[in-house]
Amino acid sequence: MTSLSRRLTAEFIGTALLLTAVVGSGIMGQTLSRGNDGIALLANAAATAGALYVLIVIFGPISGAHFNPVVTVAMRLRGELGRTEAIACIVVQLIAAVAGVLLAHAMFDLPLIQPGTHVRTGWPQWGSEAVATFGLLLTILLGMRHRPAAVPALVASYIFAAYWFTSSTSFANPAVTVARALTTTFAGIRPIDVAGFIAAQAVGAVVAIMAAKLLLSEEDARLRAG
Amino acid sequence: MTSLSRRLTAEFIGTALLLTAVVGSGIMGQTLSRGNDGIALLANAAATAGALYVLIVIFGPISGAHFNPVVTVAMRLRGELGRTEAIACIVVQLIAAVAGVLLAHAMFDLPLIQPGTHVRTGWPQWGSEAVATFGLLLTILLGMRHRPAAVPALVASYIFAAYWFTSSTSFANPAVTVARALTTTFAGIRPIDVAGFIAAQAVGAVVAIMAAKLLLSEEDARLRAG
Amino acid sequence: MTSLSRRLTAEFIGTALLLTAVVGSGIMGQTLSRGNDGIALLANAAATAGALYVLIVIFGPISGAHFNPVVTVAMRLRGELGRTEAIACIVVQLIAAVAGVLLAHAMFDLPLIQPGTHVRTGWPQWGSEAVATFGLLLTILLGMRHRPAAVPALVASYIFAAYWFTSSTSFANPAVTVARALTTTFAGIRPIDVAGFIAAQAVGAVVAIMAAKLLLSEEDARLRAG
Amino acid sequence: MTSLSRRLTAEFIGTALLLTAVVGSGIMGQTLSRGNDGIALLANAAATAGALYVLIVIFGPISGAHFNPVVTVAMRLRGELGRTEAIACIVVQLIAAVAGVLLAHAMFDLPLIQPGTHVRTGWPQWGSEAVATFGLLLTILLGMRHRPAAVPALVASYIFAAYWFTSSTSFANPAVTVARALTTTFAGIRPIDVAGFIAAQAVGAVVAIMAAKLLLSEEDARLRAG
Repeated sequence: MTSLSRRLTAEFIGTALLLTAVVGSGIMGQTLSRGNDGIALLANAAATAGALYVLIVIFGPISGAHFNPVVTVAMRLRGELGRTEAIACIVVQLIAAVAGVLLAHAMFDLPLIQPGTHVRTGWPQWGSEAVATFGLLLTILLGMRHRPAAVPALVASYIFAAYWFTSSTSFANPAVTVARALTTTFAGIRPIDVAGFIAAQAVGAVVAIMAAKLLLSEEDARLRAG
Repeated sequence: MTSLSRRLTAEFIGTALLLTAVVGSGIMGQTLSRGNDGIALLANAAATAGALYVLIVIFGPISGAHFNPVVTVAMRLRGELGRTEAIACIVVQLIAAVAGVLLAHAMFDLPLIQPGTHVRTGWPQWGSEAVATFGLLLTILLGMRHRPAAVPALVASYIFAAYWFTSSTSFANPAVTVARALTTTFAGIRPIDVAGFIAAQAVGAVVAIMAAKLLLSEEDARLRAG
Repeated sequence: MTSLSRRLTAEFIGTALLLTAVVGSGIMGQTLSRGNDGIALLANAAATAGALYVLIVIFGPISGAHFNPVVTVAMRLRGELGRTEAIACIVVQLIAAVAGVLLAHAMFDLPLIQPGTHVRTGWPQWGSEAVATFGLLLTILLGMRHRPAAVPALVASYIFAAYWFTSSTSFANPAVTVARALTTTFAGIRPIDVAGFIAAQAVGAVVAIMAAKLLLSEEDARLRAG
Repeated sequence: MTSLSRRLTAEFIGTALLLTAVVGSGIMGQTLSRGNDGIALLANAAATAGALYVLIVIFGPISGAHFNPVVTVAMRLRGELGRTEAIACIVVQLIAAVAGVLLAHAMFDLPLIQPGTHVRTGWPQWGSEAVATFGLLLTILLGMRHRPAAVPALVASYIFAAYWFTSSTSFANPAVTVARALTTTFAGIRPIDVAGFIAAQAVGAVVAIMAAKLLLSEEDARLRAG
């Protein structure tokens, strides 16, 4: 395989398994806890964190393990991948995310495609997505500088916490948002609410990139001077 | 002790304690949560993950800490152990898994052998086992390449997540599957459903080995060239 | 940005996000678990721990990641920052903590300011805060000496445990205590109870600083001699 | 402070805080979960694990962080501390364990001393304690050889799992057993049942020491030869 096809394969498998974990654990959680959504979200958050940690460790050295268009754009801005590569990555992430949702449905014997019905709209939810994405990108950008080996554990811990401290349960990922519009289960979202979430995620990402620049700027200057 | 008998002793103790943890925590979880299977699976998954992390760290340097015929076969294919050794390992894993289930029953004052009654069959379950085993082997094969010291934490995190995101709760291990057919408790499976699970696990394993080969191939080429 | 303004920016973002995590996950926990406060505190403690781990790793190299006046005072006593810097840090922590609570309220569509109504007073609660703060500072002071890279994980693990083993759920932080007086949700405290908590925290901190001195003194002597 | 008094101080604070965490989180768990013992044990196990991880990291370099007579005896057999030191350690552990229980009671405004009423007797429970202690010592002895820096995380993970996979909830520690006879709360045990538990723990410990010797013997021989 060429370097690019390996990279895209890694992004595909990683993003698909991530969505399978998010949606599948939501289904299992809701089924087993019979209406106690606290237990369902605890399981959903912990399973997502466990999957994220593993997938970032094993695919990171191959593709960077973005699994998230917002992360790919941020890495593109840092010059870590070319324009064509970035676009290809994002396309693959979108397709893989959808595939992951279908796989979760198949494993739980549910209709493969089911337009989401979970209403997620309004300023508090949009604010939640902006905050969630801001925090995620800041975690990645500062983490890569200060303790790169810990990035998988950092992202996993962050997402676990953010599932709980935002009212939107932190999608923080446009590919994940699109794919979750295809399920009516625990992790779903109405297709009509997708655009608002993605816009909010973009705002949070821009603010995070600026904040990271400010916070790391002087250090950069010192490094250049040293 | 000779090297082989040390290896087999380590596989025996490790596999037995793993099954004791899986079955014992299932019993405790179901007893304490009185019908709330969400809490039972949360405890079961977390206890299994905790045990896996410990057992892989402490027995890894002695026997590789496979505890799983699928893993032993994969390691045999990589040439990490001889044919006789591999067969001996698998036999010991099977015996130890059964011993671990009996030990769990003894500790909870239950009949030692109780043919499982939990129905686990059909395509969604088989698909789940294939996906679960695919993910487990990919985690191990890529993890060993990219961050060998993290393999115990990777396997533990993966299994925690997979308990939740598959409809079969991720057996992903033929020895575990056989042994769990001897309990009617939370973690059990009907004896008649064992063969289907093992077949599905084999399919998942083969796909994982091929995927790992593809994903790591170029790297290998580069390493050979370098 | 100058070094001091970077430091204060890091303390601001970190402390604000910490409070958002504490208060937000409390709201989500209480909402989803419908009166089962055991599940709510489990989520609240785990989300707080996850957030603490991330925030200390990513802001530690910039500002020390105190997020807590008691920690800032202890670091000042060790000569790790100047007097003006310490005072500025504490002022920023207080403002940021309040901002974090407002942000949590906004994300959950609640009134921004709501004077706390949760009664937390009396000797058992004060003793709890003294013990909680004693343990937190001892963890930080001994951890920095014995395994500095683990301090983020140590603080996160400690706070998770202390949420559960004290009757006050371990505020252990004067800025957090002040800010939590502005919410009637799960994590709140009556404004009138704040002073008692802070006094108890101060007592615990002083005892911890003395204990750490005793426990590390000889080692210091040996290091000086060696 | 002399080296011995520092060691004993560390054992005292560590053992006391461990018991405070075990008993305190049990009280909080049982109170908040109102009869759902599954949630109570989840909180109890996770809080105990969090506390163990922290206490072993911060006190390990000072005293070895035994907090457990069985561990002290095993370390004595390895020649890691003298006879007088070992006896002093065990005495301090017993006193500290009792002090920790009293502290937990005080923080939760309960009678300081309350003879335990929780019946824990019979072969399944004794077998559980033997298995639990066997596993704990094996974890420590093999962990110290194969990955010493991970021992705190290993012990914490092991105890979390063992709380769930044994019917006795894994006391695995004579000092802890004695002290828990002084509480009627979640973590309690009848005073009359203490001796049986300690005897079972001793059996498990002896088997673990022999197993570790076997498993590590050849390695030792190789190291001597090398």
